[in-house]
Amino acid sequence: MNYLKERILKDGKVYPNNVLKVDSFLNHQIDPAVVNAVEKLMYEHFKDRKITKVMTIEASGIAPAIMVANRFNVPMLFAKKTVPSTLKNQERYHALVHSYTKNTDSDVIVSKQYINKDDHILIIDDFLANGEAAKGLVSIAHQAGATVAGVGIVIEKSFQPGRHLLEEMGLDVYSICRIQSLEDGKVTFVDGDE
Amino acid sequence: MNYLKERILKDGKVYPNNVLKVDSFLNHQIDPAVVNAVEKLMYEHFKDRKITKVMTIEASGIAPAIMVANRFNVPMLFAKKTVPSTLKNQERYHALVHSYTKNTDSDVIVSKQYINKDDHILIIDDFLANGEAAKGLVSIAHQAGATVAGVGIVIEKSFQPGRHLLEEMGLDVYSICRIQSLEDGKVTFVDGDE
Repeated sequence: MNYLKERILKDGKVYPNNVLKVDSFLNHQIDPAVVNAVEKLMYEHFKDRKITKVMTIEASGIAPAIMVANRFNVPMLFAKKTVPSTLKNQERYHALVHSYTKNTDSDVIVSKQYINKDDHILIIDDFLANGEAAKGLVSIAHQAGATVAGVGIVIEKSFQPGRHLLEEMGLDVYSICRIQSLEDGKVTFVDGDE
Repeated sequence: MNYLKERILKDGKVYPNNVLKVDSFLNHQIDPAVVNAVEKLMYEHFKDRKITKVMTIEASGIAPAIMVANRFNVPMLFAKKTVPSTLKNQERYHALVHSYTKNTDSDVIVSKQYINKDDHILIIDDFLANGEAAKGLVSIAHQAGATVAGVGIVIEKSFQPGRHLLEEMGLDVYSICRIQSLEDGKVTFVDGDE
């Protein structure tokens, strides 16, 4: 069992509607040991893919993404939910990202200046559930003509359709923890650990 | 001249109304060399302050903050602009942060669970201008009875009142780049570099 799974079992909290709260170590308070473990496993999996850039979406993807980018020694780029005053409409790529939790659509943007057709982009995010955020980032990479070299996820809710959706697009999805079920307040992983 | 100043002179862009755009290496695309330099200088300055936690505010503070927290080997905590569904009102500290750019007030929150009176908190942010974000983070630390061990800033607009406001509160403010002026589209640093 890897370190992330151990931390989920020790410190994660299961709430109704399949909510897994990991804000003590991943997406509010962040434990350096956790992002170090993420960085090492992501590097091990993707090291032969000629990664030129790591891409994520604000806010909780940023901490794991910068650590992974630092390990690969490539720039990290995060998609923004608000448009900076200095970035004109024709200077940006954008994608609509639907949130099932909030039932809202938000337009996320990336400056055209920072991705191009020669890039091999590693998409990193803290969670994969319905795949909406990752799909938005893939769309932005494709708008730039870039290659998506892979999608690296810290926690995947494998009972939701995100992985399937990304695999249908031909993408390599690597998740450090794959959760089979959160039923009855108990975390069960895909490989049988619980 | 430190590496950050060099990058500002090389890649920063000055816009009207004292806007300095550094989205090619600090707050949209992030260069690992930049956050590594930030981490080293922050550690050098604050290493004797018995730091127990690094605190910042989403989104662009997160990348430098996690790198600094990793160097100190302490948790990083970021204040959120939206309230998670799992965090009840009585379980969080909050502070109103005014944005002069957007002329809005936003309520930022931190879970009470992750700060306490024994903490020595290092506040990290990418920019210091009017000091509103830092002031909000100081207020949250004080609500928890914690000690603010210092405020570490990547880029300070020294012609705006943020530093003065924080120093009036007795805080040690350390900025890697202190900008004296952005007049006529030219960056001038406080120590005379330009």
